Amino acid sequence: MTISGLTRDVPADAAPAPGRAPLRLALLGFGTVGQAVARILTERTDVADRLRLTQVFNRDVARKRVSWTPADVAWTDSFDAVLAADPDVIVEVVGGVETAGTWVRRALARGISVVTANKLLMAAHGPELMTLAVEHGAHLRFEAAVAGGVPVIDAIRSGLAGDRFTRVAGILNGTCNYILSRMESGESMAGALADAQLRGFAEADPSSDVDGQDATAKLVLLAGVAFGRHVPAAQVATASIRRIDAIDFQYARRLGRTFRQLSIVESDGSGALRASVGPVLVPASSRFARNTGAQNLILITGRHGGATALSGEGAGGSPTAVAVVSDLLALSRVPANVAGPMERPWEPGCVIPPHATAYYLRFVVRDRPGILAAITTALARYDINVDAVLQERGFPKDQLPFVVTVEPCEVPALTAAMADVQAEGFHAEPPLVVPVLPEEDDAAPVQ
Amino acid sequence: MTISGLTRDVPADAAPAPGRAPLRLALLGFGTVGQAVARILTERTDVADRLRLTQVFNRDVARKRVSWTPADVAWTDSFDAVLAADPDVIVEVVGGVETAGTWVRRALARGISVVTANKLLMAAHGPELMTLAVEHGAHLRFEAAVAGGVPVIDAIRSGLAGDRFTRVAGILNGTCNYILSRMESGESMAGALADAQLRGFAEADPSSDVDGQDATAKLVLLAGVAFGRHVPAAQVATASIRRIDAIDFQYARRLGRTFRQLSIVESDGSGALRASVGPVLVPASSRFARNTGAQNLILITGRHGGATALSGEGAGGSPTAVAVVSDLLALSRVPANVAGPMERPWEPGCVIPPHATAYYLRFVVRDRPGILAAITTALARYDINVDAVLQERGFPKDQLPFVVTVEPCEVPALTAAMADVQAEGFHAEPPLVVPVLPEEDDAAPVQ
Repeated sequence: MTISGLTRDVPADAAPAPGRAPLRLALLGFGTVGQAVARILTERTDVADRLRLTQVFNRDVARKRVSWTPADVAWTDSFDAVLAADPDVIVEVVGGVETAGTWVRRALARGISVVTANKLLMAAHGPELMTLAVEHGAHLRFEAAVAGGVPVIDAIRSGLAGDRFTRVAGILNGTCNYILSRMESGESMAGALADAQLRGFAEADPSSDVDGQDATAKLVLLAGVAFGRHVPAAQVATASIRRIDAIDFQYARRLGRTFRQLSIVESDGSGALRASVGPVLVPASSRFARNTGAQNLILITGRHGGATALSGEGAGGSPTAVAVVSDLLALSRVPANVAGPMERPWEPGCVIPPHATAYYLRFVVRDRPGILAAITTALARYDINVDAVLQERGFPKDQLPFVVTVEPCEVPALTAAMADVQAEGFHAEPPLVVPVLPEEDDAAPVQ
Repeated sequence: MTISGLTRDVPADAAPAPGRAPLRLALLGFGTVGQAVARILTERTDVADRLRLTQVFNRDVARKRVSWTPADVAWTDSFDAVLAADPDVIVEVVGGVETAGTWVRRALARGISVVTANKLLMAAHGPELMTLAVEHGAHLRFEAAVAGGVPVIDAIRSGLAGDRFTRVAGILNGTCNYILSRMESGESMAGALADAQLRGFAEADPSSDVDGQDATAKLVLLAGVAFGRHVPAAQVATASIRRIDAIDFQYARRLGRTFRQLSIVESDGSGALRASVGPVLVPASSRFARNTGAQNLILITGRHGGATALSGEGAGGSPTAVAVVSDLLALSRVPANVAGPMERPWEPGCVIPPHATAYYLRFVVRDRPGILAAITTALARYDINVDAVLQERGFPKDQLPFVVTVEPCEVPALTAAMADVQAEGFHAEPPLVVPVLPEEDDAAPVQ
């Protein structure tokens, strides 16, 4: 069931009801995104009759104050002052779950609509906040929380609403994609990460990007919008890209493949979902592989329309601000006599195990006779068929990397087999296990 | 100025006003798209409270009648009978400008909303029909008229509405893209076209596809939605792909490039537009080159969000039907007390000449001394700098193809120089002139 059948949200491509006063906007957070939002609102005189920035809130606001915003904007570091001014919409671009969550709740409880870029907050508390919005006739929009300027939520809710979705899959974290596509060109992970940090893609602590929490939060939101279900982040099978090594790209190339961090949510048609985030071995000819740099790419697959791809800037102040302002324009189009959305909050989602999948298994061993026999015997014990064995030359005997790929198998069988394998004493480091995207699934255009 | 600042259209991602009866839909045309629309409406029981198919109109309707639609659907071949039943929305998937135009006008004049897939009708009469809709409180939507299931109109109007657009560029005709990407793999144009016809991509008479009229009509609609301007199709610089030959792909490969039919509309920021449709020599690494088969790809570029790409099935019954049903769902979300759109009809657009552009010039000559001298002298006469001269071996002397690429120049200079060149007697066939997409313009993701 698609969300379009479930929700009553604000109009998105309509214009303001005639005679309606501009929405008075309080901007919470004047960092990179907040400043970019203020800049668009200041520059776009063509929407001045619809959107008016009236307040900027930031901790220690004096040091943030700029001269290029409209002169009548009130600058404050008191959230109570924001509420007291009774704005129509609060734009939350502060981030973080606790404090921002408190502010968003207080705003919604007063019937003040909220536009947020806060993926962690929405992933953790989306249904609760949506319920609060419904109860108080307020709107809650979050296009900016997923894939920055790429209007994927709008596409699911509106432009593709006529379809019945079966899968949403994508590259939702630009940092991981940047790192992996640099490694594909021969860079080390440490070098690619340092470069991403230098360019401002990656945080000083990149854990949330490389370990998958950032993409997981976004996937939770996409699952909600596409399938009307709330999948707690903890239930998404999440794997880190940290252990992908230069050698893995060497082996991947021999397989005609490369690595990407993919986030995938699929419906089984009955309301249960499959959801995963992590490195995947994808065909070199697939759209995922061809998506390089920090770009995001989302494939929305429906029963009728096939796969539709959206890609673009997934982060950065200005693209994210475009998503915020698009949400604000949508709010400005709600007729004044429509009290608020009756967006039905996402229902609890049931997460089921992944399909049987092929896997890439990379071992680094202290070489001795019988290793391959031990591994293949363990796999055979659980009815797992070996697809290929690859071993490049020129590595030291005590640190020998090689790869086994296996045909599609269920997770429990693989887990059991790998437990047996890991019990062996020949490992120089723990094996790496990465799922393989099927060829027919690569969503490459039909030739 | 973006259309979002100009129009008042229906809500797109809202749900129906509470208690509102389902929209009664009359389907005009029961061909491939019409049947796919009926199938989605019949299958999607989750939207039965919002959309109800009540009539199917087709010439000689008896032979079209099927048993899988709801039993209470009325089948008719009388348009008067359709109007007499006073449906809420007419879905026009008949095609053609004259008769369909008459029907759409009669519906709008009665305040009946129209959802259409008819690009030729909208390109020719969009502003007039939009005015008629406004006057009678009806809605007029046409997502299906551009790029089938790829929700590009919705993205421009809604998801990216916060941006200020500078350019919309894309592959809008799947047949041309199929032909050119097959030719890239060594197929002849005749062979690729026959194959496209066999697969149902191309019509028996492929003129409208290969000569650019189909893409031009779509570009006119995108210009309207993105820039609020109506550019008559006749003012779009339109070129055919017919004269691209196998040899051209050979030379393109040497240049690290390939050919695609591109449709481009750009704003100069003051309301004037540049608009063109035709073959372009694009970098092999560009997204345009990597879009193969019959897929459509549209890049929407804005001042703030950079380039956002959408791609997917540009034609076919089911993808087109998804766009139609998405439009119908949007209409079902209009609160009942909102009389109709006040969509401001597109203003007349002013088309200005293209930027100075590099060109690929391919000659086929009866070889004799002095030919290159004659060509380069003519080019120099108009201050056009030669970039490269390429000549492959192994061709007959009386039918010798070679290529000259020139640095960016204005159209009048090139036209004058080529007139001088064509006056020479050495041509075995007329020269081929194709613009070259700048490298920096290829919208490839940042590495």
